[in-house]
Amino acid sequence: MMIRYPNGKPYNKEIEQVQKPKKQQAIKDNNFSNRGKTLEDDLNETNTYYLQRQIATIHKKPVPIQIVKVEYPSRSAAVIREAYFRTPSTTDYNGVWNGYYLDFEAKETESKTSFPLKNIHAHQVEHMKNVIQQKGIAFFIIRFSSLDRYFITPFSIVENAWQQMVRGGRKSIPLQQFEAGAIEMKASYQPRIDYLQAVQQFISEEIERD
Amino acid sequence: MMIRYPNGKPYNKEIEQVQKPKKQQAIKDNNFSNRGKTLEDDLNETNTYYLQRQIATIHKKPVPIQIVKVEYPSRSAAVIREAYFRTPSTTDYNGVWNGYYLDFEAKETESKTSFPLKNIHAHQVEHMKNVIQQKGIAFFIIRFSSLDRYFITPFSIVENAWQQMVRGGRKSIPLQQFEAGAIEMKASYQPRIDYLQAVQQFISEEIERD
Repeated sequence: MMIRYPNGKPYNKEIEQVQKPKKQQAIKDNNFSNRGKTLEDDLNETNTYYLQRQIATIHKKPVPIQIVKVEYPSRSAAVIREAYFRTPSTTDYNGVWNGYYLDFEAKETESKTSFPLKNIHAHQVEHMKNVIQQKGIAFFIIRFSSLDRYFITPFSIVENAWQQMVRGGRKSIPLQQFEAGAIEMKASYQPRIDYLQAVQQFISEEIERD
Repeated sequence: MMIRYPNGKPYNKEIEQVQKPKKQQAIKDNNFSNRGKTLEDDLNETNTYYLQRQIATIHKKPVPIQIVKVEYPSRSAAVIREAYFRTPSTTDYNGVWNGYYLDFEAKETESKTSFPLKNIHAHQVEHMKNVIQQKGIAFFIIRFSSLDRYFITPFSIVENAWQQMVRGGRKSIPLQQFEAGAIEMKASYQPRIDYLQAVQQFISEEIERD
């Protein structure tokens, strides 16, 4: 009988042990809740969950690449032989949920005390301003990975900190600001990070203010 | 004096004649209004126009790439040395306009009589169904390039034709169906293809029906 991983790939114990001793070790050291997964893995799983249950249609955008050289071997697929990573001009994730346009960026930090703003690009801040101006919903999903804490963070918190940094202020957002102004989510099994709950809360607060 | 193309690239007559005799011929044959530009060029210009005037925030997604090998030369940028084109799982363009989520695919055909459905992937049709279900606005921008005619086409027209094809019907949409059910736009100077006008019309018709 062939044993398969949840993703359908066959499990081959012998190859696994020979090729990936370090990774296996690393997985053992992690605690149960994050299992060595990145925030991107968590969000991809969450978005697949939302899509399959017709809850929302949200995708990660592909990484932008500047292609310089492509080879076309006969009888096989085109091969890109020289290309470079480009700086994204927008955020990583966008989509639609019940008529709302959602747009967000996901970032992790190893820091236990603050989120460094160097993780964010000026043009992403600019893009999110444009989104808000068009009545879209813009936010950040920030994970303090050493603490395994997730904060769904309204754009306004990052924007304020960004403006202060530009005027010579501090270059990071203290954890306390997330605790006070963002919505903390616990990672769970399915969906991993149920961020639409937090978005619903943003919308309700917005309606109350109006 | 250096002569430049409208896109800013310098014009070098000698190189041009040696390397691209066929393309030059083709450009000469074109009429004034399209100037050898692709539909993608037209839409990028249009989206930049919308963005700069804060009319809408709509972007083309990067081409999805499967990266296999990356080199990290010291003191310079990472170079992708082996990568492959992947089939996109969504459409090429999306964004937000005045609270509306917009999602569309742009396609050109050389045919003068019909649009071949082989230009569209099954998962794109599936994606657009999901968008409509989440109350987003999904449509196609189809250019009959030999005729230089542009049609902003509601998803329903493509979806109906697709369903018929799946049941063994014809594999293309006749030009007459676009003339009857889509909104034709003339290309102009700024913006090149003012497709938001057509989208506004879709929305008004939708409201009337309700």
